[in-house]
Amino acid sequence: MPQGRPTDVPKDGLTTRQRRNRPLLIVHTGQMKGKSTAAFGMALRGWNQGWSTAVFQFVKSAKWTVGEENALRTLGRVHEETGEGGPVSWHKMGAGWSWSRTKGSEEDHAAQAAEGWAEIKRRLADTRHDLYVLDEFTYPMKWGWVDVDDVVATLLSRSGHQHVVITGRDADSRLVEAADLVVEMTKIKHPMDAGQKGQRGIEW
Amino acid sequence: MPQGRPTDVPKDGLTTRQRRNRPLLIVHTGQMKGKSTAAFGMALRGWNQGWSTAVFQFVKSAKWTVGEENALRTLGRVHEETGEGGPVSWHKMGAGWSWSRTKGSEEDHAAQAAEGWAEIKRRLADTRHDLYVLDEFTYPMKWGWVDVDDVVATLLSRSGHQHVVITGRDADSRLVEAADLVVEMTKIKHPMDAGQKGQRGIEW
Repeated sequence: MPQGRPTDVPKDGLTTRQRRNRPLLIVHTGQMKGKSTAAFGMALRGWNQGWSTAVFQFVKSAKWTVGEENALRTLGRVHEETGEGGPVSWHKMGAGWSWSRTKGSEEDHAAQAAEGWAEIKRRLADTRHDLYVLDEFTYPMKWGWVDVDDVVATLLSRSGHQHVVITGRDADSRLVEAADLVVEMTKIKHPMDAGQKGQRGIEW
Repeated sequence: MPQGRPTDVPKDGLTTRQRRNRPLLIVHTGQMKGKSTAAFGMALRGWNQGWSTAVFQFVKSAKWTVGEENALRTLGRVHEETGEGGPVSWHKMGAGWSWSRTKGSEEDHAAQAAEGWAEIKRRLADTRHDLYVLDEFTYPMKWGWVDVDDVVATLLSRSGHQHVVITGRDADSRLVEAADLVVEMTKIKHPMDAGQKGQRGIEW
């Protein structure tokens, strides 16, 4: 956790407070575990601030993050019941997006990814949420299912105070260039090196 | 997220299932954000599995993770009220450990850290929890407040099926050697490089 004074103060005409409260575009990339997990951990802080948090899961099978989904949905339910924290919504591509009535195109992943991004664009334009987690969104970008220049231009010109966290390996260099914060999760040692497979509660 | 078959199956006489269900010692280290955040994200999965989760915060000021603490305590309360998920307990060194009656020694950080580790040893011996998050525990190890060889020997010989996650920079090489999984969070880009300070909901 970096603390203290910034090493370099830009001549952007903003006060420290204005700069501090600038909405962030964050990328968690690298080959190792923890990219999505840290994004969902950030959602805990957002929830506590009363933020509206929306998770959009691209690509990944529903199995892998069911624990985080259940826990964050539970926090969203606590918000509805008691007013504590903030609302949480969770959208998965694999099962057909929750807002979409056309469930028939599950085989066409490229079209689904484009549909997901189109919805995120609409919500960004409406300043609908405070925190967007675009989980595994680097892959549709890599595979050409969404247009990287459109993604970057949309994110850079988004209005209001909307934070966006994007996770996944092989983040496009244009996305890295546009981001305020980029963390790479690097492998030092993994149990699979010692022949151990994933286990409940740790991997999903 | 690594998937599929391990590349190397050890000749340890264990079945895949036995090996899969081996309790893990996990270290999140490196200079960058996300070490603690990913550990708390793991606690979401543990909660969903009904695990008993205990967080022990060493060193760090209470301010920084108040969001995660409130959210995870809320999930613990949901467990108490409805039986969903698992119990969560949270212990902070800075305010005097929650189990300790001697609140008078707050200035003696070395003694407090040793007291925290002694309690964790007792709980490990009693197989009291399923997941232990020892947040920022690398620092008491680095500063000699706890004995690294004692920590490593205790963790390697712990009984039952207790997962332990340790976070913090500069993890001792003996701890890395003992760990099953080590992730390093590496900085690619940070807003402070552009003169931006931390902000509510993102940093704490």
